[in-house]
Amino acid sequence: MAKRGKVNQRQRILEEAAKLFKEKGFAGTSMRDLGGEVGMEAASMYNHIKSKDEILESICFYVSDTYIAQLAEVKQTEASYTEKVESLLRRHVHLMLEDGAAVSVANNDWKYLTGDKLTAFKEARKSYEQGFATLLEQGIAAGELHPVNVSVALFTILSAVRWVELWYYPGRGISAEELEQNIITILLNGLAK
Amino acid sequence: MAKRGKVNQRQRILEEAAKLFKEKGFAGTSMRDLGGEVGMEAASMYNHIKSKDEILESICFYVSDTYIAQLAEVKQTEASYTEKVESLLRRHVHLMLEDGAAVSVANNDWKYLTGDKLTAFKEARKSYEQGFATLLEQGIAAGELHPVNVSVALFTILSAVRWVELWYYPGRGISAEELEQNIITILLNGLAK
Repeated sequence: MAKRGKVNQRQRILEEAAKLFKEKGFAGTSMRDLGGEVGMEAASMYNHIKSKDEILESICFYVSDTYIAQLAEVKQTEASYTEKVESLLRRHVHLMLEDGAAVSVANNDWKYLTGDKLTAFKEARKSYEQGFATLLEQGIAAGELHPVNVSVALFTILSAVRWVELWYYPGRGISAEELEQNIITILLNGLAK
Repeated sequence: MAKRGKVNQRQRILEEAAKLFKEKGFAGTSMRDLGGEVGMEAASMYNHIKSKDEILESICFYVSDTYIAQLAEVKQTEASYTEKVESLLRRHVHLMLEDGAAVSVANNDWKYLTGDKLTAFKEARKSYEQGFATLLEQGIAAGELHPVNVSVALFTILSAVRWVELWYYPGRGISAEELEQNIITILLNGLAK
């Protein structure tokens, strides 16, 4: 019970930290700011987390681990390449809608990671991009996807969804499901009928 | 002849400035850095430009004026909405390929504009986005485009092409024309066949 409470406190600290880092940047956020949001003295927070750096690591690797797990999940399904690409894209956008602050931190503040952690994060990102690219390549080779340059397709897709975490909040006049579906329609089927 | 020389010098200063601002940021670039690139004493540069601020203004408004002129051009052509969207998108990407440094400065360093210039730039950007959105709206209403949320379509398109100025250089293994065409294929016709 006490353990569970501790896990929840840690989770709450990470969530508030992600929101603050998104808003003010990792460099612009102090442990005092974070304590204020969480309603805890900075000293008490150290019962749950090691340092501001450790918070950043947890957030960045939560995002990269999730992306990589989603890639693994999609790869092992029995489906056409088009369906796999759709499914991976849907999960990718979904994480942005569910955890926009964490994704924003992983997108923008990863550069404050240091040493091994920085190397590991860059490798994780590269491995996700390569896995995504391989799916596109296989889809093109199988004649399911248009024969475009794979790098162009990959960066167009990943870039196309970058605005989502900056723009979306419930009350934007569109549901998360509709937004997801609209993006998939545009990227998979195109704007033109 | 002297006049022509002066215009060329100014043009050259603006081009080198765009490259430096892209690389080091507006705030991180000094007039001395710029003089070094252009091969001119800072004092001599003031025969051609007024200040670092004026250089930033020239670059930002060159980009926004070009986008707005392209929108006006496309709007008055006799073509289907799909063709108009394609044509606007092609021009949009083309400017990034032709003048990547200037586009990068207008995308990232516009926030260093001040006063009336800042207001005017924001208005220009809004007017371009609204004009682009109107074309999409008309295309959807005419049944030519998929009935997606117009804001989602607009931001997906504009975001989808943002990586181009960061990634592309001649020698990337793809020609500018192919890159343009690939992006148009993905956004207009979709990845899936």
